[in-house]
Amino acid sequence: MKATVLIRPKGGILDPQGEAVGHSLKKLGFDVRGARVGRVVDLELETDDVEVARAEIHKMCEDLLANPLIESFEIQVDGS
Amino acid sequence: MKATVLIRPKGGILDPQGEAVGHSLKKLGFDVRGARVGRVVDLELETDDVEVARAEIHKMCEDLLANPLIESFEIQVDGS
Repeated sequence: MKATVLIRPKGGILDPQGEAVGHSLKKLGFDVRGARVGRVVDLELETDDVEVARAEIHKMCEDLLANPLIESFEIQVDGS
Repeated sequence: MKATVLIRPKGGILDPQGEAVGHSLKKLGFDVRGARVGRVVDLELETDDVEVARAEIHKMCEDLLANPLIESFEIQVDGS
């Protein structure tokens, strides 16, 4: 089963990469107010159970994929 | 208007970061076949027109956000 995790810097957290992207886009002439940059992780899991997958990915995020202090994560499982 | 761009390494392209994440997840005991890592860019645009936003973001991706040779991008505009 395939799943996707979106990991983003939390609201109040400084995001230098996003600021750099925002500045560059403005310099290139794009009408953009701001940008924030995070990570997308596509996973291929052994299980085909949506609920099992969701719980497992939640643990993956807490253990390795995200830093819960400064990042939020959003789990998208195929078929849910 | 808010929009999100998902930028991923294309299918045949080597993804060392994804491989490292996959190996680490397996070492931690997770039942995962593989992982691929890309970027998520959240944009705040001046325009409120979905079609204008979509066209502008497409150009941003080609000019700055993605490397079309090795990366694919997916544009998600609010309200579309």
